[in-house]
Amino acid sequence: MIEAGPLMRVRLDLTYEGAGFSGWARQPGRRTVQQVVEDALAVALRLPAVRLVVAGRTDTGVHATGQVAHCDVPELPGTLLRSLRGLLPPDVRVLAASVAPLGFDARFAAMLRRYEYRIADAPGGVDPLRRRFVLGWPRPLDVESMAGAARQLVGLHDFAAFCRRREGATTIRTLLRLDVERDGDSGAEIVCTVVADAFCHSMVRSLVGALLAVGEGRRAVDWPASLLDRDRRSDEVGVAPAHGLTLVEVGYPPDAELGARVEQTRARRA
Amino acid sequence: MIEAGPLMRVRLDLTYEGAGFSGWARQPGRRTVQQVVEDALAVALRLPAVRLVVAGRTDTGVHATGQVAHCDVPELPGTLLRSLRGLLPPDVRVLAASVAPLGFDARFAAMLRRYEYRIADAPGGVDPLRRRFVLGWPRPLDVESMAGAARQLVGLHDFAAFCRRREGATTIRTLLRLDVERDGDSGAEIVCTVVADAFCHSMVRSLVGALLAVGEGRRAVDWPASLLDRDRRSDEVGVAPAHGLTLVEVGYPPDAELGARVEQTRARRA
Repeated sequence: MIEAGPLMRVRLDLTYEGAGFSGWARQPGRRTVQQVVEDALAVALRLPAVRLVVAGRTDTGVHATGQVAHCDVPELPGTLLRSLRGLLPPDVRVLAASVAPLGFDARFAAMLRRYEYRIADAPGGVDPLRRRFVLGWPRPLDVESMAGAARQLVGLHDFAAFCRRREGATTIRTLLRLDVERDGDSGAEIVCTVVADAFCHSMVRSLVGALLAVGEGRRAVDWPASLLDRDRRSDEVGVAPAHGLTLVEVGYPPDAELGARVEQTRARRA
Repeated sequence: MIEAGPLMRVRLDLTYEGAGFSGWARQPGRRTVQQVVEDALAVALRLPAVRLVVAGRTDTGVHATGQVAHCDVPELPGTLLRSLRGLLPPDVRVLAASVAPLGFDARFAAMLRRYEYRIADAPGGVDPLRRRFVLGWPRPLDVESMAGAARQLVGLHDFAAFCRRREGATTIRTLLRLDVERDGDSGAEIVCTVVADAFCHSMVRSLVGALLAVGEGRRAVDWPASLLDRDRRSDEVGVAPAHGLTLVEVGYPPDAELGARVEQTRARRA
């Protein structure tokens, strides 16, 4: 038995393409982001194992450009990023590794998660260079209606109608932002920006599924909000495909408030 | 024999991911962009065959976001884009189809071709969501030196040192622009923007290969320009990989000048 020295907490900023992964969380016999990155870290740091705590446990096929995780390890070599570049497969990258400020916890200190869901409804179809990250939609979408429906969903609600049920997990969430707009000069992509302190399972893709029904004119603008505060998942809400969804940002409070935020999150979960 | 009616010239704007294609030009037994798009057009327009004339004959693995082609056909149905979306594979898209102005010729009326070559030298490696379109470089590059070397290459020169020889093709070209800069907020990608009226074979990737040698410090800033006006290809110049290169724009003169431009281009080629 080797005596363990003091550990330091390291913050990792990650990006990955979701297609090749069965989501973030380790599962026996599956290729997951957690497994691939933990294994590479163990080799790079010459440790028997490394355990990551992550901000957003993305589902199968969901991408991340702004994922954050932490691990507690004996040292942070200056060459870690270059080592990981050689060890990791090309569909996942550690963009930054830094000593975390005191009180930092990738999961419990997070204040907000920001996701983007992208849709292209141009008659010619989805840009081939963007097709892995953008949902193609075969009919024109009315973005004004979608934006109007989205505004009614913002705030503190029970989102049970939009969540896959998980034992013991609350479906009451504060949706901080849900914007729908055409992106960029060309307007070729519709981007749904979704921000909350936390999400329940499949919530973002269900919200987008409901907005798609509005954008097509199959449902009224008021319909998604009419599902709020139900006590169970609605069969009428489709779940939009995973490949249009990307975790783009995890937000943390200023360093001095990290500890208080962790206390607060843990207390709420307990 | 069906009697042919009058034909109209149609301009097509295309985008494709290069990885799955053996370049633009039709070749027996190879999957090429020309073959795939011509075949889809023939089905969509119920013609035995359609022949495309293209602005930029991209090589194997090179992408295009702003490719332009034309064809002469009996009619342009309003549903053509939607038909093509169903007929084309997802790695190529026709974004627009329009009746071309009088005198238009996708190849001979073009005034300039603009390419972008993208490189990422971050220690963590290439962004997984961008890796198909960006060359990863394992060592930091000095963008200032690259930009300085690039400036000396602009203008009318014999680029034979940077060209793969083709029988009867001139290697004297006017390089209108060759900029090297870090792109965007993060600066994670170095973008080389290359504009000329026309290019000889493998010229853009050879220019980038020479600039990479400067950026690494293996060659002096003056070295690429010292190769100008040689009479043959230089063995010292590496050809950068295809996947970092994208044809982003083809520029045409105002409609009233299209005919004159075509005359001028044809005269120069003859």
